[in-house]
Amino acid sequence: MPPCERMRVEIVSVGTELLLGQIVDTNAAWLSARLAEIGVSVYRRVTVGDNLERLVDALRDALRRTEGVITIGGLGPTEDDLTREAIAQVLGEPLITDEALAEHIRQLFAQRGREATPQQLRQAMRPPSARPIPNPNGTAPGLHAEKNGQFILALPGPPNEFQPMVQDYVLPLLAKHTGGQVIRSRVLRLGGIGESDAEAALGELVRSENPTLAPLAKLGEVHFRITARANSPAEAETLIAQMERAVRERLGRFIYGTDDTTLEQVVVERLRERGESLAVAESCTGGLLGKRITDVPGSSEVFLGGIIAYSNAVKHSMVGVPSEVLETVGAVSEPTARALAEGVRQRLGSYWGIGITGIAGPGGGTPDKPVGLVYIGVSSPHETTVYRQIFLGDRAAVRWRATQFALWQLYERLRNP
Amino acid sequence: MPPCERMRVEIVSVGTELLLGQIVDTNAAWLSARLAEIGVSVYRRVTVGDNLERLVDALRDALRRTEGVITIGGLGPTEDDLTREAIAQVLGEPLITDEALAEHIRQLFAQRGREATPQQLRQAMRPPSARPIPNPNGTAPGLHAEKNGQFILALPGPPNEFQPMVQDYVLPLLAKHTGGQVIRSRVLRLGGIGESDAEAALGELVRSENPTLAPLAKLGEVHFRITARANSPAEAETLIAQMERAVRERLGRFIYGTDDTTLEQVVVERLRERGESLAVAESCTGGLLGKRITDVPGSSEVFLGGIIAYSNAVKHSMVGVPSEVLETVGAVSEPTARALAEGVRQRLGSYWGIGITGIAGPGGGTPDKPVGLVYIGVSSPHETTVYRQIFLGDRAAVRWRATQFALWQLYERLRNP
Repeated sequence: MPPCERMRVEIVSVGTELLLGQIVDTNAAWLSARLAEIGVSVYRRVTVGDNLERLVDALRDALRRTEGVITIGGLGPTEDDLTREAIAQVLGEPLITDEALAEHIRQLFAQRGREATPQQLRQAMRPPSARPIPNPNGTAPGLHAEKNGQFILALPGPPNEFQPMVQDYVLPLLAKHTGGQVIRSRVLRLGGIGESDAEAALGELVRSENPTLAPLAKLGEVHFRITARANSPAEAETLIAQMERAVRERLGRFIYGTDDTTLEQVVVERLRERGESLAVAESCTGGLLGKRITDVPGSSEVFLGGIIAYSNAVKHSMVGVPSEVLETVGAVSEPTARALAEGVRQRLGSYWGIGITGIAGPGGGTPDKPVGLVYIGVSSPHETTVYRQIFLGDRAAVRWRATQFALWQLYERLRNP
Repeated sequence: MPPCERMRVEIVSVGTELLLGQIVDTNAAWLSARLAEIGVSVYRRVTVGDNLERLVDALRDALRRTEGVITIGGLGPTEDDLTREAIAQVLGEPLITDEALAEHIRQLFAQRGREATPQQLRQAMRPPSARPIPNPNGTAPGLHAEKNGQFILALPGPPNEFQPMVQDYVLPLLAKHTGGQVIRSRVLRLGGIGESDAEAALGELVRSENPTLAPLAKLGEVHFRITARANSPAEAETLIAQMERAVRERLGRFIYGTDDTTLEQVVVERLRERGESLAVAESCTGGLLGKRITDVPGSSEVFLGGIIAYSNAVKHSMVGVPSEVLETVGAVSEPTARALAEGVRQRLGSYWGIGITGIAGPGGGTPDKPVGLVYIGVSSPHETTVYRQIFLGDRAAVRWRATQFALWQLYERLRNP
């Protein structure tokens, strides 16, 4: 593969299940994003079924327009898996068995006390001029072929096999040929602010060309991805650090973490640092807040537990919400959220208490108390604050946003000394 | 458009944001599934950026191979929206302003107290021979063009505009021309059995050609999709019903629902039918079971709530697990699961009680009590049963499987009179 200033590739996704709409092609979108980050331009994407002739056509078409093609899928052991055959045809070569690959597949099966079938061993076949791409998470290796200065890279479809092979093989390979450039990216995760307010505050930064700064909208939070291209990892990291500093100068108070860090993780971490504990009383979220906190390994150090106070009887008997409150202002109200937050803190003996009560929908709304109305109480030994919010979206969105809001309010209190 | 026994179409998705991987193309998958259901075969799918020349190429390519092409996206008001221009080029026609469409757009804006800009009015342009496709949920109409017996259908990208236009215009139009081949499918959802045991029991049924029977593996359950092709909807339904009967004869006791029905839905439904209530006490699942049950709208009729008994102190004080049990056999034990199930039932006053305690990992395992070990108790006024399971997978998988197992055990009890 010769160096190439502005590399163009085409992605070919293979699988009749894609054309039947049985699965959504998230692999192609994920790969497109990774390629964009290293400055490789995707000319177009094509999806074909498990059909040898059409697959060969798609590969030939793609190679007419681009420097190379990346295929996803069709490398498994069944007769429907035709990507190997198609590549052999395009190269004008036969398929041979790679003995080292065959031995590797036999060993993988032997480790599980089974014998590799002849069908499984089809995965060890390759055109003589193609190299296997290692697949640490599956039996089917990828293939890397070159012809007349163009490349064909074939990757398997299961995301847990596909993604590491892209990260470890495809991106470094292509980055070498896009002018020695390396690409690095970092995601900044923001809570407590909407996408449009965040973008407005960032102004001209979102039009920067290197590094780029791109918003990624998520439910209840906003992420920005910084992507830098440079001639060395150190230079790329410097560019990222400069942009991160500029973003933090404007929006630092909303940034709770980077990359894969979740809001629940930083909440658990801060509680641990402060030596403080938490308990929750959930009505409309029904356990989702507890579930999110206990998604974090080690959360048992700070999370005592909670009450899923779904019925009014449980709100009263288990958390101590006064019956007169439930009978007069009702379960979805400021005093109920306050009593839930304070009650769970006292009964479970925690430092912090959170109470959530609201109308997640689709039923149960009234003109006074519409679907999406949620009261969220946050209580410490010093004070209790209750927030009234109306969240948009369906039942799942309202419930998610309510827990996100509660976690953010707690986080704001925890990060201040 | 002439009648056509086996109609083949190509789908062209338009948008640079797709090629950059900023959004996943769920529209194309959704349309593919709807076309398969009416017996229209998708020859291939192509994704192109907002580039006139490439879009024209993609349309011409598609028309060389198929009876017609359906485009998604690129119909909005901005200069990046080039689908109208591309269709005009393929037809060899200019773009003219459709005065009726322009007036409609002006009115839509006037209703919101605004004036339609010249840019907005670009959406009223069409090639003279193309008909507008009504869009009740947006300003950009679709386009329906025909040339030499082939068709081009152009639809906007926002799913809330796109989907109704497919349902109301595209599918009826194409179904008229497919000479009777229809496709119908149904998913059967199974709990309490693994994929390989289920496939073994189904034997030769999974090799049936029409209808087909295909396994879809899910975490903690197994789905089988029956897909039938026939000359009429009634005939397709008969084929599906025959296969469903054959599957039910062999695996009926494991089938809890069809299509989008979830296990938590059928549990809530059966509880409602029986007039029985439920409460849960969760340790390692931390609220996930309550969350899943309250995902079901209307679950408040039968679900009273629960205790997230994460710490030992909460297990004792809020659910009544005896201190000597926690101190001797420990929190992850048969007696603790039993006390959680019975205690939450008694304290919350429900008919059914579920208790879950285990080691979700990644830390906390010992040789005696490995990661994945979970005790699940199911209690009614008549008896309490505790199950000991070792679930495979990471923290999220162990937690999910534990709730799935608990829901399945409850469901088995609820479906018997």
